[in-house]
Amino acid sequence: MPIREPGICVVDVEKGELRGASNRYTKTMADLAGLYEDEAAYKAALAKLDDKVVYEVTDFKPSADAGDMIIGVTRMIPGKVGNEYFLTRGHIHANANRPEMYYGEAGHGIMLLESPAGEIRTVEIGPRSMCYVPPYWIHRSVNVGTTELVMTFAYPADSGQDYDIIAKAGGMRSRIVDDGKGGWKAVDNAGYRFRSRELVESIMAK
Amino acid sequence: MPIREPGICVVDVEKGELRGASNRYTKTMADLAGLYEDEAAYKAALAKLDDKVVYEVTDFKPSADAGDMIIGVTRMIPGKVGNEYFLTRGHIHANANRPEMYYGEAGHGIMLLESPAGEIRTVEIGPRSMCYVPPYWIHRSVNVGTTELVMTFAYPADSGQDYDIIAKAGGMRSRIVDDGKGGWKAVDNAGYRFRSRELVESIMAK
Repeated sequence: MPIREPGICVVDVEKGELRGASNRYTKTMADLAGLYEDEAAYKAALAKLDDKVVYEVTDFKPSADAGDMIIGVTRMIPGKVGNEYFLTRGHIHANANRPEMYYGEAGHGIMLLESPAGEIRTVEIGPRSMCYVPPYWIHRSVNVGTTELVMTFAYPADSGQDYDIIAKAGGMRSRIVDDGKGGWKAVDNAGYRFRSRELVESIMAK
Repeated sequence: MPIREPGICVVDVEKGELRGASNRYTKTMADLAGLYEDEAAYKAALAKLDDKVVYEVTDFKPSADAGDMIIGVTRMIPGKVGNEYFLTRGHIHANANRPEMYYGEAGHGIMLLESPAGEIRTVEIGPRSMCYVPPYWIHRSVNVGTTELVMTFAYPADSGQDYDIIAKAGGMRSRIVDDGKGGWKAVDNAGYRFRSRELVESIMAK
């Protein structure tokens, strides 16, 4: 196996991107259908934002080898759909026993975590705070601030992403909404369906 | 296996440490015997610095599991031993096929990398620059600035460190010295001994 060359990237906090990244993907409001509770507010947001990028990810992926690592930057604009703050689709790692690190660069976010059995945790992320997402937690980020939320992340290169786990349960168990005082609170997602014990066990066995 | 709780740490750039870290180690000049070329200058630095911490590492190690990750912060004071800039001991990962990420927080550093076969690379690190150290590279950081060098790092939890690989070769192939104009340059280390082909192959087979 040939030895690979060192990599150098720069986190551009203002632009919310990784300079030197090998991949980029963007999400517009049209890509986020079904994530928000208030359908009418979603349609209004869709009409207003059109093809504006709601969030984007730039990353540097040296390989997909077990034991290697991927780094990247995620940027999300501020806003709400109804009273629900803008969020990412969220995922669990396809290899569910893989962790992830999220590091605040700018703005004010929440990492919303859900265990396969439906336990919820919320971790506040501001500049220079590092959130460790342990293996087996479904996670999504939420922009609860008034400016762009920019985070650097790192995770094992063989993690993979399973996005369907959230959709299949009717969303995550909690929604992050405006508390009416300029802050945020977690409220129950009325559409949430708990996973079966068998499904939870099969995820935890990965 | 019980699910683990999310972690939250904060990088304190001014103090050069990770708040919420589970481990800390420090190195004084006495711990760094044999690393610098100029023995007389080393003895002078030892007398001058006494037990002052030259560099320290604080880290958060959730587990040592394959597929898990460790993060931390390293802080090194500025200075020279003779014309050689302050440096860390350096290592290769005991599981040599594991990478590492170093992320500049403050100051101006060099990541000095050496392949088992003796190829040298130097990567400049300033605030917000991210150096990817690929698998199989011996690496050490050097503070070529006039202020503390602070970096955040992340690496696979089962990497391990082998520090002896450098000592056994008489140091790394290059030394990072003052170029006489306030900058730095890499010069040959006269005491360096190339590894045998057999040893290189055994490292690359890990």
